[in-house]
Amino acid sequence: MTAQPPPSPHETASAPATVRVALLGCGTVGTQVVRLLRRHSAEIAARVGAPVELVGIAVRSLDADRGPDVPADLLTTDAEALVRRADVVVELIGGTTTARDLVLEAIAGGAGVVTANKALLATHGPQLYAAADAAGVDLLYEAAVAGAVPVVRGVRESLAGDRVMRVLGIVNGTTNFILDEMTTGGHDFDVVLARAQELGYAEADPTADVEGHDAAAKAAILASLAFHTRVSLGDVDCEGITGVTAADIEAAREAGGVIKLLAIAERVEAGSRESVAVRVNPVILPDGHPLAGVRGAYNAVVVEAEAAGRLMFYGAGAGGAPTASAVLGDLVAAARHRGQGGRAPAESAYAELPIAGPEHVTSRRQIRLAVEDRPGVLAHLATTFAEHGVSIETVRQQAGDDEAATLAVVTHDAPESALRATISALRETPGVRELLSAYRVERA
Amino acid sequence: MTAQPPPSPHETASAPATVRVALLGCGTVGTQVVRLLRRHSAEIAARVGAPVELVGIAVRSLDADRGPDVPADLLTTDAEALVRRADVVVELIGGTTTARDLVLEAIAGGAGVVTANKALLATHGPQLYAAADAAGVDLLYEAAVAGAVPVVRGVRESLAGDRVMRVLGIVNGTTNFILDEMTTGGHDFDVVLARAQELGYAEADPTADVEGHDAAAKAAILASLAFHTRVSLGDVDCEGITGVTAADIEAAREAGGVIKLLAIAERVEAGSRESVAVRVNPVILPDGHPLAGVRGAYNAVVVEAEAAGRLMFYGAGAGGAPTASAVLGDLVAAARHRGQGGRAPAESAYAELPIAGPEHVTSRRQIRLAVEDRPGVLAHLATTFAEHGVSIETVRQQAGDDEAATLAVVTHDAPESALRATISALRETPGVRELLSAYRVERA
Repeated sequence: MTAQPPPSPHETASAPATVRVALLGCGTVGTQVVRLLRRHSAEIAARVGAPVELVGIAVRSLDADRGPDVPADLLTTDAEALVRRADVVVELIGGTTTARDLVLEAIAGGAGVVTANKALLATHGPQLYAAADAAGVDLLYEAAVAGAVPVVRGVRESLAGDRVMRVLGIVNGTTNFILDEMTTGGHDFDVVLARAQELGYAEADPTADVEGHDAAAKAAILASLAFHTRVSLGDVDCEGITGVTAADIEAAREAGGVIKLLAIAERVEAGSRESVAVRVNPVILPDGHPLAGVRGAYNAVVVEAEAAGRLMFYGAGAGGAPTASAVLGDLVAAARHRGQGGRAPAESAYAELPIAGPEHVTSRRQIRLAVEDRPGVLAHLATTFAEHGVSIETVRQQAGDDEAATLAVVTHDAPESALRATISALRETPGVRELLSAYRVERA
Repeated sequence: MTAQPPPSPHETASAPATVRVALLGCGTVGTQVVRLLRRHSAEIAARVGAPVELVGIAVRSLDADRGPDVPADLLTTDAEALVRRADVVVELIGGTTTARDLVLEAIAGGAGVVTANKALLATHGPQLYAAADAAGVDLLYEAAVAGAVPVVRGVRESLAGDRVMRVLGIVNGTTNFILDEMTTGGHDFDVVLARAQELGYAEADPTADVEGHDAAAKAAILASLAFHTRVSLGDVDCEGITGVTAADIEAAREAGGVIKLLAIAERVEAGSRESVAVRVNPVILPDGHPLAGVRGAYNAVVVEAEAAGRLMFYGAGAGGAPTASAVLGDLVAAARHRGQGGRAPAESAYAELPIAGPEHVTSRRQIRLAVEDRPGVLAHLATTFAEHGVSIETVRQQAGDDEAATLAVVTHDAPESALRATISALRETPGVRELLSAYRVERA
């Protein structure tokens, strides 16, 4: 006979009630969620403090082949009825109409919600957060920003006692892959894009990725979280990577850096009021910067906080299993709260900061110019910078050909308005043939 | 007249009760906690959902000068009385006796506890976790592992639905600083240690850092968390950096890598049972590894999980303000739970995995040998490796002098027992003058 362990003081006569989970959508991520839930059911139950049961999977068609991980008897086309039977609803159908209706219905019925739907949050976030708040239920979305990278929880919970000053991240794997390939192979954008499309790393219509729209949606979510204020997609100043050339990348490399597409959200002063500026644009990162080494389809987000200093969160930005891992982390939290009470920190917009336009941002630029290779040109250029109050950190002359030279000027920090005026004036400065590029440069 | 906003559905007639916080200890971190609590009181109240009031600061002497951030009227030498008046107790006094008694008293009184005391957890963790569990209160300790790096919350919450396979981290800033300086300057250990002591980066008695004991305590905490099992300091196989030479670092650099002191915890098979192996030792990291670029006093932890793949958490590993940021993140969580109900995920050891000794680990090694520079030596060596079933990935000959050469052999993955037998046999192999080093090598 084996001695029984003494009952824990919290143990009650009845077993804890099973937490019923409904899954809406069963594509790449959904299939992985089902697989992991089944495979790790004992561990998940231990972490939740109660058994977790997948009670149904809503799909559009019952006929599609979903492989051996998805039990056919859980499939249903009646998503609404399924939602009514669940304690936690995992929304993975995408889109903003049916998804919104089902999420609202789940919340109204008192269920916690986990979603990976960035578009839904960007479009209907405030309505959904308010509904979750009124019902006192969780609405969690770690998987909607940068896949498995646990930056949502990090910003919302780990930094809850700090003051975030700046967030900058590589949050789109497709563009990071393309820039990486351009850097490694020395090819131009079009060549690498075509290759990425062949390999399935870029969509047939790559607009959302290469124009920065996908990154902008994530930037809006991160900025809202980090600054406890409302930032929507339209507030993001957005520039993609279609204009990045092999020559630009080579020039960055010569200056000891790499070009990355960054989402940047920061506190700025605008008209003496503290404001938030959010942008997506290609930036030169010096090699020592923690984001400079983020390769291929990985994502990473640096958060600069007043007390913590610089933190970085790094991981797989997409993919079925990594995204499912993020979904399940949220699912365990929502299920635990259902069983044991409590609730994750709700969304908050108490800070109500105004959005500052790009003209209020301060930055450094690397300005590359094709100039005539004759005496006096540099003096003209230097005068143009000085007249606009922009001071120069370094000037480097790069390889040129017949009577032309390429100059790369890196400025000190300067207001965007002064930089724009300088760039306009440079085009008219004697000896300047062409303005080649004017990337922002981050500090290591 | 301004229109009043409509009352939120959760607003009640009475204001939420103030959460009373007691601070035990007021050194470098404590002073920063006080400063941040006062400076950000409005934001912290918004995140907690109730005002947070610092009701007292227990110190040993009332006379010490603590600067302008610490209000003298909050100081007391009666820590026990203070603990009884608090809803959340922040323990920053260090040590394992008084700290344990006060933490147990706080828990018994129903207060949530936040601590940065790694030694306390390493010594009395199980007793404290059990007490917190019995009382249903929080016991949070983000700041005890790697300062501001939010890896405790990441492993416990973000990966709650995943299965961690391996954790590897740079968790000691002093040794990372020393190895970094050795790498940059080409100096030997003793020279750099003396310099680090002068600069205040290393203690007068540097044993705990340079012998790896500090990293081992953190490794034990991380392993317990990641594998939901009990790992104590004595379970960690520990080797420090006192034996690392400038020549070792140069040899690693020639092979495209750097030497870092890593804490590594992983699942291994031992006698066909799943077990956990935990070690601290200097390792060669190839330049492409995310931890290879972690410089100076920064810390970073890579977590390899079954579904999420590789995640990394990076940030300041020590310092008053960064550590205070981590303390405050926990404080906000504990205060929120006091006001609104709920509790952070408790410690769990349900997996009850056995600890595997170092002989059960599989790894690659870079084995450097001083050998006679004559025909046949390489054949002898190759035979020795083959006889022990260790296969060779690369062999490189490095600069030698009169009739001697240095060979650097990198093996494929092999069981530790086979590697140890190979190393013993190599010392007896004809033509081998000396075994110079045998570092483990991680994969990019």
